[in-house]
Amino acid sequence: MLKRKICVVVTARPSYSRIKTALTAINEHPELELQLVIAGSALLDRYGNAVDFIEKDGFEIAAKVFMVLEGENPTTMAKTTGLGVMELTNVFYNLKPDAVLTIADRFETIATSIAAAYQNIPLVHIQGGEVTGSIDEKVRHANTKLADLHLVASEDARDRVIKLGEIPEKVINTGCPSIDLVKEILKSPKLDFDPIEKYGGVGSKLDWKTGYIVVMQHPVTTEYQQAKSHITETLKAIKKLDLPTFWFWPNVDAGSDGTSNGIRTFREIEKPKNIHFFKNMEPKDFLRLLKNSKALVGNSSAGLRECAYLGVPVVNIGNRQYRRIRAKNVTDVNYDLDKILKATQKSINTKHFESSEIYGKGNSGENIAEILATSELTYSKTITY
Amino acid sequence: MLKRKICVVVTARPSYSRIKTALTAINEHPELELQLVIAGSALLDRYGNAVDFIEKDGFEIAAKVFMVLEGENPTTMAKTTGLGVMELTNVFYNLKPDAVLTIADRFETIATSIAAAYQNIPLVHIQGGEVTGSIDEKVRHANTKLADLHLVASEDARDRVIKLGEIPEKVINTGCPSIDLVKEILKSPKLDFDPIEKYGGVGSKLDWKTGYIVVMQHPVTTEYQQAKSHITETLKAIKKLDLPTFWFWPNVDAGSDGTSNGIRTFREIEKPKNIHFFKNMEPKDFLRLLKNSKALVGNSSAGLRECAYLGVPVVNIGNRQYRRIRAKNVTDVNYDLDKILKATQKSINTKHFESSEIYGKGNSGENIAEILATSELTYSKTITY
Amino acid sequence: MLKRKICVVVTARPSYSRIKTALTAINEHPELELQLVIAGSALLDRYGNAVDFIEKDGFEIAAKVFMVLEGENPTTMAKTTGLGVMELTNVFYNLKPDAVLTIADRFETIATSIAAAYQNIPLVHIQGGEVTGSIDEKVRHANTKLADLHLVASEDARDRVIKLGEIPEKVINTGCPSIDLVKEILKSPKLDFDPIEKYGGVGSKLDWKTGYIVVMQHPVTTEYQQAKSHITETLKAIKKLDLPTFWFWPNVDAGSDGTSNGIRTFREIEKPKNIHFFKNMEPKDFLRLLKNSKALVGNSSAGLRECAYLGVPVVNIGNRQYRRIRAKNVTDVNYDLDKILKATQKSINTKHFESSEIYGKGNSGENIAEILATSELTYSKTITY
Amino acid sequence: MLKRKICVVVTARPSYSRIKTALTAINEHPELELQLVIAGSALLDRYGNAVDFIEKDGFEIAAKVFMVLEGENPTTMAKTTGLGVMELTNVFYNLKPDAVLTIADRFETIATSIAAAYQNIPLVHIQGGEVTGSIDEKVRHANTKLADLHLVASEDARDRVIKLGEIPEKVINTGCPSIDLVKEILKSPKLDFDPIEKYGGVGSKLDWKTGYIVVMQHPVTTEYQQAKSHITETLKAIKKLDLPTFWFWPNVDAGSDGTSNGIRTFREIEKPKNIHFFKNMEPKDFLRLLKNSKALVGNSSAGLRECAYLGVPVVNIGNRQYRRIRAKNVTDVNYDLDKILKATQKSINTKHFESSEIYGKGNSGENIAEILATSELTYSKTITY
Repeated sequence: MLKRKICVVVTARPSYSRIKTALTAINEHPELELQLVIAGSALLDRYGNAVDFIEKDGFEIAAKVFMVLEGENPTTMAKTTGLGVMELTNVFYNLKPDAVLTIADRFETIATSIAAAYQNIPLVHIQGGEVTGSIDEKVRHANTKLADLHLVASEDARDRVIKLGEIPEKVINTGCPSIDLVKEILKSPKLDFDPIEKYGGVGSKLDWKTGYIVVMQHPVTTEYQQAKSHITETLKAIKKLDLPTFWFWPNVDAGSDGTSNGIRTFREIEKPKNIHFFKNMEPKDFLRLLKNSKALVGNSSAGLRECAYLGVPVVNIGNRQYRRIRAKNVTDVNYDLDKILKATQKSINTKHFESSEIYGKGNSGENIAEILATSELTYSKTITY
Repeated sequence: MLKRKICVVVTARPSYSRIKTALTAINEHPELELQLVIAGSALLDRYGNAVDFIEKDGFEIAAKVFMVLEGENPTTMAKTTGLGVMELTNVFYNLKPDAVLTIADRFETIATSIAAAYQNIPLVHIQGGEVTGSIDEKVRHANTKLADLHLVASEDARDRVIKLGEIPEKVINTGCPSIDLVKEILKSPKLDFDPIEKYGGVGSKLDWKTGYIVVMQHPVTTEYQQAKSHITETLKAIKKLDLPTFWFWPNVDAGSDGTSNGIRTFREIEKPKNIHFFKNMEPKDFLRLLKNSKALVGNSSAGLRECAYLGVPVVNIGNRQYRRIRAKNVTDVNYDLDKILKATQKSINTKHFESSEIYGKGNSGENIAEILATSELTYSKTITY
Repeated sequence: MLKRKICVVVTARPSYSRIKTALTAINEHPELELQLVIAGSALLDRYGNAVDFIEKDGFEIAAKVFMVLEGENPTTMAKTTGLGVMELTNVFYNLKPDAVLTIADRFETIATSIAAAYQNIPLVHIQGGEVTGSIDEKVRHANTKLADLHLVASEDARDRVIKLGEIPEKVINTGCPSIDLVKEILKSPKLDFDPIEKYGGVGSKLDWKTGYIVVMQHPVTTEYQQAKSHITETLKAIKKLDLPTFWFWPNVDAGSDGTSNGIRTFREIEKPKNIHFFKNMEPKDFLRLLKNSKALVGNSSAGLRECAYLGVPVVNIGNRQYRRIRAKNVTDVNYDLDKILKATQKSINTKHFESSEIYGKGNSGENIAEILATSELTYSKTITY
Repeated sequence: MLKRKICVVVTARPSYSRIKTALTAINEHPELELQLVIAGSALLDRYGNAVDFIEKDGFEIAAKVFMVLEGENPTTMAKTTGLGVMELTNVFYNLKPDAVLTIADRFETIATSIAAAYQNIPLVHIQGGEVTGSIDEKVRHANTKLADLHLVASEDARDRVIKLGEIPEKVINTGCPSIDLVKEILKSPKLDFDPIEKYGGVGSKLDWKTGYIVVMQHPVTTEYQQAKSHITETLKAIKKLDLPTFWFWPNVDAGSDGTSNGIRTFREIEKPKNIHFFKNMEPKDFLRLLKNSKALVGNSSAGLRECAYLGVPVVNIGNRQYRRIRAKNVTDVNYDLDKILKATQKSINTKHFESSEIYGKGNSGENIAEILATSELTYSKTITY
């Protein structure tokens, strides 16, 4: 029997975490063959070299595509996307997949969508239908309009994709594969490694065993200019909080230079003693780190997704996650030292929350593989209204 | 006072006809400055060299962009789009427009949309919200989701864009600028030139003065393989009809080679005596040609739009215009010699219809310019539901 | 034992003929593995679809790359090359060849050279060191300066490459693989097929059995504007000659539209009765057609190369082959009806010439494979003076 | 009178220094119009943002082109070049220059050459004919073979370009414009600013007034892997030397990550107290810094060029400047702690040398402008042998 060839394009470190269990399930499914393409910042050292983790996890890579233009501004984001369309078109043309899978809403994911849709390859979109601020909002819904099959992460998202004129049978709530990993690590949730010893990083040696928080704050593309001032508010709040803190560098985006720059400047001048910086961490280690933390601060989607299931308190800053569905563990605040500080103080004094299944029950990867193996694959559609 | 710089990207001959009166109105508006970019097949000889007409019409061109990959298949369509994103990004970066205007739903229009949206330039989309078959359907709605301001051509389209989650105040029915031209030529509708004398073309000399029909049939991208057999049905029907016929070559699209090939083969073998072929015609001449014809046959959108206002009977073949709104002048048929023949025979025996305003009243260009001059220009949005 | 992976990039129909026996020899060599990349106009219908012949000949294709921008002007030639660099870089990165082979001097061959040289992959250049007019002259010598190993087609060429500062041991005269094919067909040189029956084409049915000539004339890129007038001189001369003529369409180049246009116009107006037009022909059939012709007219390099070994008289027009080494069979004339006519009349009354080995003895393919298998492969060099 | 439009493409910080006085002279020449294009790393923050200095110097910029792919490896170098070809082609097409000027031998300069040569725009190459190791060697001579007019920086270079088959009248020794700046600052050579106060940078506060050295060492592209170990030898030597040192970060190249990484690692672990790091410096300040230093260490071409005229002792490490002509001020050493240390100790105890004019007399900019204004501009050529 001929296996269905499913081509998945991973363009960034966080996308890998979100899709990993689905990759495993596709690989193991008797009727599917995985064609894994690694592109964009997932190949770059400065953004945590996700490709190394992927190869270490045993996945075979069908093609690698360098496509990130340097500059980290709106112009290079657009050019990166154009380059991605051209290169991925070529890759798909030569790999001849039966379906292509594009992930979520990063700016370059539309390159995957165009390269597939224009070549009449059925396009599957994972994690559409959510709502946020920034350019991601435009990209995500444009991906939906280019895609033929929608595997969404929540009921809320499913309703929205259907409202966008998609055929209800083509919109399936599989939950988010990132929750699968969470479920797995909850079987042995203990922090079984020393983060600084294992991952190095820079900054102060911390006495984190008595309690720590985690910070992860990305620039928001439509607020490109403000990236530096935004991150500085958070830095000041965390310094003032004076609790051991593990801080993760932002991923590739217009403005990440503003964010990185802000962090570097603050470090040089303020020399905060309670912060240690990491570039990257293996997903499972990261989840255990979160699970054992007092709170997550920043604007990472992990705060809404993984932390919902983990029950970890989250201080979500600014409007990067604007209107994305959230469980009770999330407190929203503005870019404001005082508000960030107060919300974080309150969070660290709160008990962890009960696990919420709004983003899935921990079996999403298998769901996705099964749907890819069995559902009808089409590449033409018409709006429902 | 600083004028608002409005950058309009024209990528194909038919797009020019659809936007021409708006270009004139922008040019003449005291608060606007037109930055006209000519790209894609609008620069190519094989597709009628629209750029020559544009320069002859007196428009100044800010930049020209060659971007069409040869091959006329889905792969080169996708690559053309990727190349367009990269090049247009550069053009916008250097022109620094206050708003970019993208037209309708041709595959490469999404390049304009991405290059503008990703650079935080307010994006205006003309003629969104309609419904058709083929890849255009995906592209059009994706353009809507990337755009900030929607200037649609009918009430039906306006409703649909709002359903897609756009803010109602940002969706304005201006009518279609192509109707402006129609209104203008209706002041002196007589066919004041000899088509063959003025435009050359190839094929039989026709005795057209006692009545003729016009044919314009494009390939449908998702039916790439069938292009040749589809066009052959029409060719056979028209040959059998044995009425003087002016036939226009298709525009650039995956499959146009199939269509062109079908036409060439038929000509060589069948040597139809009642057909004369044109590559292109000035818009006003084309409209007068339609007005004085007995019917238009094929799948051109002119059949639904311009002919609605003109009242000319139309035989619309296949699903290229699937579900696009139409007035009473249109008869839909399948790719079927007999059905095409019968519908055309009936149409040529019908009186012309009353003029319909479903696609505008003839003042769309001015409407568009005025809105561009006065409405708030934004580049960030969130879905309404 | 690990085989050396040799990646050969074929970008056009004529390049395939020139390299074919080397491809076969590489494929059959026990220590080599062929990675064949088909790109550019070799994939395009309008240029004879070389890829079909290549697949029919049994070669496995490692990657296909669409990269030709439409427009056939100097601007699109340059962009095609840029696109080629980007795409071929990706292809080499994923194929990981031990050496890349670039062929001769077509404008896009520098894309292959850059993609290999910049990635520190040993670059082998075939057929450097020759002299011509036009942009090819610049491209060929630039390829030489980017390449590490030079497999040239004549002693004359070898001397020139060494003068260009290349290390003598790295410059080897293998002869031209195109001569291998010639040698092979000379074992049974009879014209064993009816050209019109087998290849169709357009134009007059010819009574060619009593004698015919062959014409093949390409545009010269630095004389872009004159392409049409140049071809017209030849057309007039050939019409006047009134001998059965097989005429081949030009290949893809800036100006080929001028040439093609000139041919089409002439056909429509002058309706020459002694000319039949072909798009393409299998190499062996083409060589037998030449062998049995009275003369070859035009500016094809086949006139200097293959016809040297075949001994067929050649009327070489203009400066496309300027200063390329030639045997006694070639008469050079300018773009001038009378001179073309007289030289052709003289040629068709001449007996065929003795075979010349200036471009090889018919074993070049094997020579090339053996050198690729055994010579040291390096990617760094310094000029010798 | 129509001025000749001269388009100069600056792609990197060091290229700007080398061409600056020519830009000024072109700008001021009554028969010339400067079209300045800033591209590549000259637009990037991480590489010193040359564009800011250029604008501050009062030059008007005709177009900016982002084209650097992130990754800093051979693959992204090649892709950057391909992208450059495409973008610069477009820029030249729209600017319509009478000549294009490409500078020296950085990998992306071939993009400028191809974009001009293929569009039949006369190409002027500055600083060809020199000899070095690494990929620059291939690029430089390939640029020569694509160029029509050669403005070289030394007699040695002129001889070599002529040997490469260029027409002697088209090869003119103008000297190097970088020497013009040197001559100018020698009118008031005193170090009139505090480097650390003016430029910030990172590392130790130095007591440099009693004597200091300068270090500038770039990665060598064909030795990509060794970049880190190479820089480490130099770092150790300089640390041991224990003299105040101003160290400049490397420019963008494959491997610069290895070099940067080596520097960062060394700083973190060894915490050298005698080194202060800069990203960039205005050219005149840099020259005064050199003039007043005890020696320059590294592999910068400034050591061979500017320092020849300045008479400053130079310790030149490794083969980046292999066989480039040098005056008596240069001592060559290998990547070896001890040899670097000894050579530097000897150099700092040597008096400065007499000024050498091997790279020009200080009037190159004016020479270049005058030649561009008066010499015949052609775009076609044939090798001289």
